[in-house]
Amino acid sequence: MTDSPTRLLAEFAAEFRHDQIPSAIRAEAGRAIFNYFGCALGGSIEPALDKAIEVLAPFSGTPSACVLGRREPFDELNAALLNGIGSHVHEYDDTLPQNYIHPSVPVASALFAYASANPVSGPDFVQAFIIGFEVESRIGDAVYPAHYEAGWHITSTTGVFGAAAAVGRLLGLSATQMVWAFGLAATQAAGLREMFGSMAKSFQPGRAAQNGLTAARLAAADFTAGERALEGPRGFAPVTAAEYDLDRIGAGLGEVFALNGNAYKPYACGLVVHPTIDGCSRIRERDRPDPDAIERIRLRVAPLVLDLCNKRELKRALESKYSIYHAAAIGLARGKGGLNEFTNEAIADPVLARLRERVEVTSDPAVSEDQVDIRVELGDGSELTLFVEQSLGNVHRPLSKDQLEEKFHDQAMLALPAEQVERLIGDCWRIAELEDAGALARASRPAMPMGAAR
Amino acid sequence: MTDSPTRLLAEFAAEFRHDQIPSAIRAEAGRAIFNYFGCALGGSIEPALDKAIEVLAPFSGTPSACVLGRREPFDELNAALLNGIGSHVHEYDDTLPQNYIHPSVPVASALFAYASANPVSGPDFVQAFIIGFEVESRIGDAVYPAHYEAGWHITSTTGVFGAAAAVGRLLGLSATQMVWAFGLAATQAAGLREMFGSMAKSFQPGRAAQNGLTAARLAAADFTAGERALEGPRGFAPVTAAEYDLDRIGAGLGEVFALNGNAYKPYACGLVVHPTIDGCSRIRERDRPDPDAIERIRLRVAPLVLDLCNKRELKRALESKYSIYHAAAIGLARGKGGLNEFTNEAIADPVLARLRERVEVTSDPAVSEDQVDIRVELGDGSELTLFVEQSLGNVHRPLSKDQLEEKFHDQAMLALPAEQVERLIGDCWRIAELEDAGALARASRPAMPMGAAR
Repeated sequence: MTDSPTRLLAEFAAEFRHDQIPSAIRAEAGRAIFNYFGCALGGSIEPALDKAIEVLAPFSGTPSACVLGRREPFDELNAALLNGIGSHVHEYDDTLPQNYIHPSVPVASALFAYASANPVSGPDFVQAFIIGFEVESRIGDAVYPAHYEAGWHITSTTGVFGAAAAVGRLLGLSATQMVWAFGLAATQAAGLREMFGSMAKSFQPGRAAQNGLTAARLAAADFTAGERALEGPRGFAPVTAAEYDLDRIGAGLGEVFALNGNAYKPYACGLVVHPTIDGCSRIRERDRPDPDAIERIRLRVAPLVLDLCNKRELKRALESKYSIYHAAAIGLARGKGGLNEFTNEAIADPVLARLRERVEVTSDPAVSEDQVDIRVELGDGSELTLFVEQSLGNVHRPLSKDQLEEKFHDQAMLALPAEQVERLIGDCWRIAELEDAGALARASRPAMPMGAAR
Repeated sequence: MTDSPTRLLAEFAAEFRHDQIPSAIRAEAGRAIFNYFGCALGGSIEPALDKAIEVLAPFSGTPSACVLGRREPFDELNAALLNGIGSHVHEYDDTLPQNYIHPSVPVASALFAYASANPVSGPDFVQAFIIGFEVESRIGDAVYPAHYEAGWHITSTTGVFGAAAAVGRLLGLSATQMVWAFGLAATQAAGLREMFGSMAKSFQPGRAAQNGLTAARLAAADFTAGERALEGPRGFAPVTAAEYDLDRIGAGLGEVFALNGNAYKPYACGLVVHPTIDGCSRIRERDRPDPDAIERIRLRVAPLVLDLCNKRELKRALESKYSIYHAAAIGLARGKGGLNEFTNEAIADPVLARLRERVEVTSDPAVSEDQVDIRVELGDGSELTLFVEQSLGNVHRPLSKDQLEEKFHDQAMLALPAEQVERLIGDCWRIAELEDAGALARASRPAMPMGAAR
């Protein structure tokens, strides 16, 4: 038994067996992969991805891999980056509430890129996904909250380890090679919360996917790295977190799985504004207030909400995903928070702009990040109130299979024809039974444009 | 006048004019580039580079760029990474003593990669180099020492900004695009001192060169990033340094140049053991002690020396570059610290192994990092002593042009035939006069192997 958390986690990643994974965890992995895939399709036509593809195309090698929802072939390293941008750009991907990691994007972006270019069976894909997910989540648990509060984008800083573990497992790394892969991941761990609200935000988990894949590839060739990536005095935990607890790396490893606590967003924006959209949507449905009659909206929220989402003046569509003011406005005026509620058109909508001006937010440590206290005053002096105890999409109110399918469908329809979307929904649920997991990635390529078919 | 240090530095990088650069700074840039080029050739046959090339070859796009000292063509992004590995792998590159950045590797690795694939005149190359050098150094000054002491490999964390600035200038970025390039650099700023002594060490500044180049390319396509990369509350300085001083970004910008304080190593190892090699070599030359007669070597050194270089048992050649024990041994037994003193053969040499065992080191805050107090006891009871006030290669005892040429020559001869080496030495000194700076990079390709020439 080793006393090195890095080694312990590397042994788990290299050696943990298929048959040790509980069936409930396999099922949750299926939901996570399904949700991820829909998000990747939804983001596949975004300008941030178009720009990245345009810039990086000349720097892609053997075009054996594909980017989900795109026609351009890429090498697997670039495909991992581009999958990451596309699947995170709408902020619609999954979240671990315990450490604010968006766990599937770095891991699945690397895995789909790798599997689209190399033979990987469905069961191996799912096993690698579960391992990568567990690795990044445990590293996140060890350094959260100090690491996150310092300003690190924890999704990318820990995601690079998850991607390295997942692909490293498929490459058959030994435990020592996995230690090196973690070292190479640690040297590339980066990403700042200062970039939130810009294209650089989704670039970060994409880069984590690509860098993790690169780390695994290099380690497989015995490219060495320091062997105490996590716990060494100049290692990841001491350098990036004022406080950390590396005992969390090994506690219940192989028995307790982070996938159990994974949450899927009903709204295409920052998680901490979800209770507000949920609650305001419920007020709209319950009381049907005329938006123009709303004079004042008072919110009592968890402190993190104002820390992250205190943007009232919105210049760019991406900023609206981190605005508590916009969240209240779309809930009350539209009763939803789909992709269309976070566009340039939406931020210019005068009804929403007027409502944003009327929002007053108070931060209250007694309110949890799943909660919000809402008080809406109307012109006639009446007040509509609601306290949200558990927000839709959290582990206590998870999205149903139907809701996940609807979310997938709405996103995929932006990029692909209906028939292809329906086929992908069916295939995606069956990934664990596929002989070739990469076929799923390739099946997401859009058909040739009209007239170019032959 | 902006109050944003990020914007200020971006304006400098985008707009600082050619004719504002003093001629002494141009001359020092020439020395830095010359020293860099020799180091890149010396490292061009190292196993770390061979492995990286083997792994990354399938993931390289349009093969329009070249890696210094290598025949394989690569795209410019991979060439930047590989140039960085080769030029840093021997730890023989330059150093800014004020902040421990190895400044030329990230900037010149990106520039030579870019210039080998795109038209760049000699004067433009030198100007971009000076700008990139200044940008990384000023960011380093702002966060040093807290950033470095925390465990960051400051060469890579600041080098990514330098590479972005240098290539960004050649791409003609506007000041706003340069701000985005710095944002994209900040999101990729990474590299841990925990990796010292492994292949991951040289990977880090290589990745910085590649990531900085990528940042500049993306910014040129208006891929956006947060605009307060350095000073924002979740930006580079607050996140990575417990204390920092962003006033240093703008102080004397465009008037005082970091190149003035650049130092070139006479020894192929960590800078802080240089005084010891220097002093022990001088004792060897002065007193000619028989190594076998040496019973005890007592060193009084600056505290950082033991912090970085307290490795007595050496298992890997790379570790010997960070061993104060090995440094004393090679100085006394061989009187030099060239590439041959840091090989597996050298660490196995019984004379050196015996001497390492006899070294006793005391850390003394009164001793500067340029100094060492050496006391060598011989078997007959006599004692040889020397106090090194200024170490060879520091700004007070700089390497002469001849010494730089000898260093270049010794390294380049490992990789290339004598005639090609002589030609490169001449051409490299003339880079500022070249019409096409990339021609210099291409001229470093080894000739075809015998028999394959036609």
